[in-house]
Amino acid sequence: MKLGLFGYGTIGRGVYTLVEQLDKSYNCEITKVFDLPIKKEVLGDKLVTNIDDIVNDDEIKTVVEVLGGHDVPYEVITKCLKKGKSVITANKEVVSQHLEEFINIAHANNCSFCFEASAGGGIPVIRPLIDNIKVNDVNDIYGILNGTTNYILTKMDEDGLTFAEALDLAKQNGFAEANPTADLEGLDIVRKINILSSLAFKGNIKNDDIYHYGITGVNKFILDDIKNHGYALKFVASSKKTGNNVSIRVEPTMVKKNHPFAAVKNEFNAVLFTGSTNSDLMFYGKGAGSIPTATAIVSDLVSILEKRSYIGYENKNELIVNKNMQNDFTYYIVNSKNVGEFRQKVSDEELLKSKFYARVLD
Amino acid sequence: MKLGLFGYGTIGRGVYTLVEQLDKSYNCEITKVFDLPIKKEVLGDKLVTNIDDIVNDDEIKTVVEVLGGHDVPYEVITKCLKKGKSVITANKEVVSQHLEEFINIAHANNCSFCFEASAGGGIPVIRPLIDNIKVNDVNDIYGILNGTTNYILTKMDEDGLTFAEALDLAKQNGFAEANPTADLEGLDIVRKINILSSLAFKGNIKNDDIYHYGITGVNKFILDDIKNHGYALKFVASSKKTGNNVSIRVEPTMVKKNHPFAAVKNEFNAVLFTGSTNSDLMFYGKGAGSIPTATAIVSDLVSILEKRSYIGYENKNELIVNKNMQNDFTYYIVNSKNVGEFRQKVSDEELLKSKFYARVLD
Repeated sequence: MKLGLFGYGTIGRGVYTLVEQLDKSYNCEITKVFDLPIKKEVLGDKLVTNIDDIVNDDEIKTVVEVLGGHDVPYEVITKCLKKGKSVITANKEVVSQHLEEFINIAHANNCSFCFEASAGGGIPVIRPLIDNIKVNDVNDIYGILNGTTNYILTKMDEDGLTFAEALDLAKQNGFAEANPTADLEGLDIVRKINILSSLAFKGNIKNDDIYHYGITGVNKFILDDIKNHGYALKFVASSKKTGNNVSIRVEPTMVKKNHPFAAVKNEFNAVLFTGSTNSDLMFYGKGAGSIPTATAIVSDLVSILEKRSYIGYENKNELIVNKNMQNDFTYYIVNSKNVGEFRQKVSDEELLKSKFYARVLD
Repeated sequence: MKLGLFGYGTIGRGVYTLVEQLDKSYNCEITKVFDLPIKKEVLGDKLVTNIDDIVNDDEIKTVVEVLGGHDVPYEVITKCLKKGKSVITANKEVVSQHLEEFINIAHANNCSFCFEASAGGGIPVIRPLIDNIKVNDVNDIYGILNGTTNYILTKMDEDGLTFAEALDLAKQNGFAEANPTADLEGLDIVRKINILSSLAFKGNIKNDDIYHYGITGVNKFILDDIKNHGYALKFVASSKKTGNNVSIRVEPTMVKKNHPFAAVKNEFNAVLFTGSTNSDLMFYGKGAGSIPTATAIVSDLVSILEKRSYIGYENKNELIVNKNMQNDFTYYIVNSKNVGEFRQKVSDEELLKSKFYARVLD
């Protein structure tokens, strides 16, 4: 099978390498790579700089999209699916906004849409979830879904680094982007918990409806106090379905030292599901990085080659997300003097006025 | 689709319930159940007491085998597959001994053989592993694979129970069988780590070649000392491939308090894989129990109904298991006075002479 690859950045190169290493019996080759003209030197004749060179190539039956961003990937994915090409993507931005549309176009054109790498990076979680929810009614999801911020919190906690030092180290080690705002404020996590929640709860969710609060306010005094109370601080997405009401929150969260999330460190991620027939299922692994993410993408590819790719998403439920919802969680709220107190029944307005806060997960 | 169910015990009843709850669009019904005549009262006309009543029923295209034991299940599985019926089983005893044979018969007869529930109970681990190893060369597996023994160790550790008290409690709560020897000595774990290792390392492994040492020697003094050294005691299967040499050991194992396994408590299980492209992947959930195990079985069923069931097992490698292998692990060895010492390069003969020992996992 001939493949087209959109994007030859960090993940694209990983995909290219792993496809070359696939068992020869799959007879699989990347024949065209879309990227900027500057990549001519490494890609030679395989480089194309117009997406239609791949879209209109009838010999290419499957494409991998790892461009990042929204507009071009959206165009690439819809055009390819409409041509009956199966699409594999790692792009949480487009998947979180257009999952139902992509699945519907894929069905109509008898091809596959696969997105294992779009939430949880290298962790196999989308396929197991899709299989599991045919039987298990998932009602709760908790996730540590961003490698950058988990790395920062780990380095602050274990090595006593300041926030700025930990962020610098994350950049040096390739775990943080030049502009890390989407990571630090939780926007990246919003997209991932949206994808997981849409699948598990069987309905559409808008990224804008998801509450999020970032970790930039954390400092050593706060972390030490949290530790002294017997907790570890993690940046956690939580998603809960009650009837058709859904509460999704992305916020700094304190977990007990013996909670499974306390052992999730550095660039590792984890997702925990609770449901009607499986009370707790957790998936743990590297949430980012070229080769782990490429592994998830090429696993999707193999499932297409073996004609057993998954069927995603059923939009059955009219979900109501974070509208007029009240929570009775306990919060740890820090004032301007770095003094924290535990309180319940706090409104989001009050939370946002604090210097920093964390939800307490018991 | 009409289904046949072999066995109406704890798991069989769970399967029956979950199949009845499946989405009606699958149009799936259990029409015959094989069990003893005594079940006539609950099963009525669905009960059959001769396996051939299901084997020879051409309307039944898929069967679930949850009988337990070896001889009858082996006969059931081979007869059904040869008739072109897809088979789903939770039976680690037969799967660990005949996996390659079953897969080959299934291929030859154009049907599926699925065994998600045979290792890890309710944890989706077999399918993710089969997908993952098409790309990722797994070389290390660690597992907490037995709910009974993990429950016993947790209750001893957290509630100060004696071994006998914890075992009794496990029996009362349905986590231990009347005769718990296979659990306590690690034989149950041997079968599960065999299945996982055979898949991951792509070769046949005999249960008899796997080293195992049980937990019956543990007591409160030992557990306290282990805790004071900063470790938690777990019953761990470890499996390592180096070239075609494989070392598989099932033995009490000490893990640091911040190791992901330290948070695996009570009847929960976990499996951790390390490989060439995914450095650490962990799957966590309930390793036993009627409904969790039935969830794994019915997930397999759905994959068959949706025509995307997995293709297991490639026997590519001539594996050499635990022959002339030396290890340089550190062991904690307890003498008859309950005094433990840490030692390296200890032979298995010496280990077996101790009152109790545990491997130290760093």
